[in-house]
Amino acid sequence: MPVGTVASVKGVPQDVLEELGVQILLNNTYHLYLRPGVDTVRKLGGVQKFMSWNKPILTDSGGFQVFSLSELRKINEDGVQFRSHLDGSLHFFSPENSIAAEIGLGADIIMAFDECTEFPAEHERTRKSMEMTLRWARRSRDYWHAHKHETPWYDEKTRQMGSPQYQALFGIVQGGMYADLRRESAERTVEIDFPGYAIGGLSVGEPREKTWEMVEATIPLLPKDKPRYVMGVGTPEEIVEYVRLGVDMMDCVLPTRAARHGLLFTSEGKVNIKNARHARDEAPLDPKCGCKVCARYSRAYLRHLYAANEVLAQVLNTVHNLAYYLDTMRRVRQAIQLGEFASSRSAV
Amino acid sequence: MPVGTVASVKGVPQDVLEELGVQILLNNTYHLYLRPGVDTVRKLGGVQKFMSWNKPILTDSGGFQVFSLSELRKINEDGVQFRSHLDGSLHFFSPENSIAAEIGLGADIIMAFDECTEFPAEHERTRKSMEMTLRWARRSRDYWHAHKHETPWYDEKTRQMGSPQYQALFGIVQGGMYADLRRESAERTVEIDFPGYAIGGLSVGEPREKTWEMVEATIPLLPKDKPRYVMGVGTPEEIVEYVRLGVDMMDCVLPTRAARHGLLFTSEGKVNIKNARHARDEAPLDPKCGCKVCARYSRAYLRHLYAANEVLAQVLNTVHNLAYYLDTMRRVRQAIQLGEFASSRSAV
Repeated sequence: MPVGTVASVKGVPQDVLEELGVQILLNNTYHLYLRPGVDTVRKLGGVQKFMSWNKPILTDSGGFQVFSLSELRKINEDGVQFRSHLDGSLHFFSPENSIAAEIGLGADIIMAFDECTEFPAEHERTRKSMEMTLRWARRSRDYWHAHKHETPWYDEKTRQMGSPQYQALFGIVQGGMYADLRRESAERTVEIDFPGYAIGGLSVGEPREKTWEMVEATIPLLPKDKPRYVMGVGTPEEIVEYVRLGVDMMDCVLPTRAARHGLLFTSEGKVNIKNARHARDEAPLDPKCGCKVCARYSRAYLRHLYAANEVLAQVLNTVHNLAYYLDTMRRVRQAIQLGEFASSRSAV
Repeated sequence: MPVGTVASVKGVPQDVLEELGVQILLNNTYHLYLRPGVDTVRKLGGVQKFMSWNKPILTDSGGFQVFSLSELRKINEDGVQFRSHLDGSLHFFSPENSIAAEIGLGADIIMAFDECTEFPAEHERTRKSMEMTLRWARRSRDYWHAHKHETPWYDEKTRQMGSPQYQALFGIVQGGMYADLRRESAERTVEIDFPGYAIGGLSVGEPREKTWEMVEATIPLLPKDKPRYVMGVGTPEEIVEYVRLGVDMMDCVLPTRAARHGLLFTSEGKVNIKNARHARDEAPLDPKCGCKVCARYSRAYLRHLYAANEVLAQVLNTVHNLAYYLDTMRRVRQAIQLGEFASSRSAV
């Protein structure tokens, strides 16, 4: 899932996302809550109508975003008090009003409100945090259940489809870097019963083997017949390996953020486009890539745009990196369909 | 002609420019000379190949750009010494090496090196400046004539077409805000004999009626059967009126620069998209516009992108403003073809 923080994948128009074959986007509740505000998005029909994107959208709960404002937040059992990074104004997210925001934004998939445990953290501290996330998961589920009719589009979609149409609320497994806590969190989150499950609290500064170990410990305890989503990962090589572990969904700012810094993923490895050695290189960025950037522009031109600080650099780099990620996942899906994925690394 | 200063119309990929029906782009010699440098562009086959744009490109001579660096330049008969706005390094443009740069960049239409007279300026000072521009026009023409085979693509295009292929070097009329000097400059520039003529030194701070008066004084003295180009104008209303005076070509940063500041041209007048009254407006920016921005997005979304400082704001705003300008000129051409243009203001 490409990340479209404030209802835009930075620099890429929606028709280009469609051409790229994007199937689902992530929007951040924290950012949309602050700007343009939940009421505005609700009034405009929800995030899909707002940004004119006719495929699914997932919103996070704001938990992770608020967690990353470490200077500006205060957590207790009730929820999290935080200050806006925009104007310093004071706000409060609880499981209830975070889910209310997600209902108001009206994405297709919404996430329970969780505490993302900091790294590093002691076992005892991590257990307490995990326990609170479980209590918050129940509160999220209960609030959602009582208010699930309140999406901006409930009446319209329900009439269209002839049956009640709701968002899917996913639970989030926590447990820090402790496999026993991850397993316990998974089992107890599954007991609450969600239509999909995410593994959260990863990519918070731990070594990559730890991330891997935690996913490996958790995945077998999540139902195979429901979507299993690892939040905030990874590199192109890693996402393939996560699929091998049984992961169905991932989101990551890496392709889009790296693009803005001139770091491009290619079949021949990472390319730093600002490097002077590309200045007169007439070759495409990636000769094996079929995206419209590789089909049309030279490395020399992309390097020039980046060096000259042109906005088009960001646009084209982002389009390419997304194409690279989406192609990777397309090959994974094909290999799975052909029954070749589990047996062969080279299939993708 | 949309302005693509450093071989990019800020934020808009070339395939979108094609969709918009852009027929010709302007690139700035001064900027490309500094970055990526003429040698690099030459090595890569010239500006068209460099930016992968298969329609005509026009480069200015750098004269106007250097003129706008008033703090950093020193002018004498030989040429202009100036400092780079990027790193303060010292450079020198003369008619000869400016044309050498334009030959190296290899655009389809190139401009003679001129002095853009400052505003306001006395009659005597303006005459002297105009006289120097005339001498520089001859030197530009002479240098071009001796070196016109040296474009990056001369051999290839000449072979392809079966006859020698050269750039078209246009002369530039100066004369400040004095109709008598404009007329004299026009007559004497035409005597030198160029395949096209521009009116330069306008839009330098003078009242708009003055601009109009100068164009009106000059146009009748420029051959009707050659392109007549007014540099650096104007608003959508003005460009229609310039055509009425006999102008064939114009360039202006207004549509692209205004877009970056959230100022959008519509059939109902100018719209300042950052205005809070658009925050919940589901209507398209311009209901009469057929561009892909107006076809897909609401004012509310465009306003949100602008307020949130999203790069997509610049991309979409620029696409719309270019569409508006290009549609305006398309209607002008249709009206001319139907013989309705001269007779009726309402035809466009």
